[in-house]
Amino acid sequence: MRKVFPLSKVYQLIEPGPVVLLTTAHKGRANVMTLSRHMMMEFEPPLVACLVSGANHSFTALRATKECVIAVPGAELASKIVKVGNCSGRDVDKFETIGLTPLPAEQVKAPLIAECFANLECRVVDTSIVSRYSLFVLQVLKAWTDPARKDRRMLHHHGYGRFAVDGEMFRLRSRMP
Amino acid sequence: MRKVFPLSKVYQLIEPGPVVLLTTAHKGRANVMTLSRHMMMEFEPPLVACLVSGANHSFTALRATKECVIAVPGAELASKIVKVGNCSGRDVDKFETIGLTPLPAEQVKAPLIAECFANLECRVVDTSIVSRYSLFVLQVLKAWTDPARKDRRMLHHHGYGRFAVDGEMFRLRSRMP
Repeated sequence: MRKVFPLSKVYQLIEPGPVVLLTTAHKGRANVMTLSRHMMMEFEPPLVACLVSGANHSFTALRATKECVIAVPGAELASKIVKVGNCSGRDVDKFETIGLTPLPAEQVKAPLIAECFANLECRVVDTSIVSRYSLFVLQVLKAWTDPARKDRRMLHHHGYGRFAVDGEMFRLRSRMP
Repeated sequence: MRKVFPLSKVYQLIEPGPVVLLTTAHKGRANVMTLSRHMMMEFEPPLVACLVSGANHSFTALRATKECVIAVPGAELASKIVKVGNCSGRDVDKFETIGLTPLPAEQVKAPLIAECFANLECRVVDTSIVSRYSLFVLQVLKAWTDPARKDRRMLHHHGYGRFAVDGEMFRLRSRMP
């Protein structure tokens, strides 16, 4: 049994990788945005494709500084994540307004986020696809996780505030990395 | 509290979009592979970036025919998905061996998969990034869902057979598509 599905909603079927936060620092000011359009391209060194449109205030910082942090929030940060997405760094200091704690990173000026269970320090290594698709290729230079944190369930955004939390986990014999 | 995380495992932190199946048809023969490295690039018309390496038997078919179907399996297909990933279309007819039912698509020669709750007929619209990153840009031409299917929980692959099933869903006020 099958039915035509609207093309405008296709992203709800296959987009939901985990929602992450992307921080930048530019002209002495840190900013943070939500990001769900990202994809691993290489395992090691880890290359990540991420789509940051020119409409985002972070776009300018990312292009100018060629540095960012991808911070992976747990499910309990859902309401803060939505706040990050609903306002712009043009207007407010999101860290202060929303209550996220920036921490110094080691290899980039963009801050880590203390509340996130993983933080990836990244450098932009390829901007040749930016003009066509707003797609930046990042190399992860350093990755941090919180070893005290056992619950690593992530959030998947299905569009307009509908989220799924990682549920049951299980293991099968697979050779796929 | 934080700890350095191995760069070789970074993909486990941010990769897990839903695992999908990708079908092709080439020289009269259909094939299917697992795909978890994909990303929405545009909402409408829907553009999807997907990474199919030259090591995959489907790579040749995809590049030659410029057509495929992305089929979205529910969590109950986990063991079949793993079988799809653990063998090659070079050696076997995966549909028959594994027990997946190919159905004719409308706009492409690659088959839909009856057992999947959504099927997206796609055309390759940009191969300029293939040589550098094995990244194909697909346009979704037609999307099908199974309206009888209410359970649309997807599978997220965390590497080497560790899967998370979509769990609890909730809604927050968000302007993000």
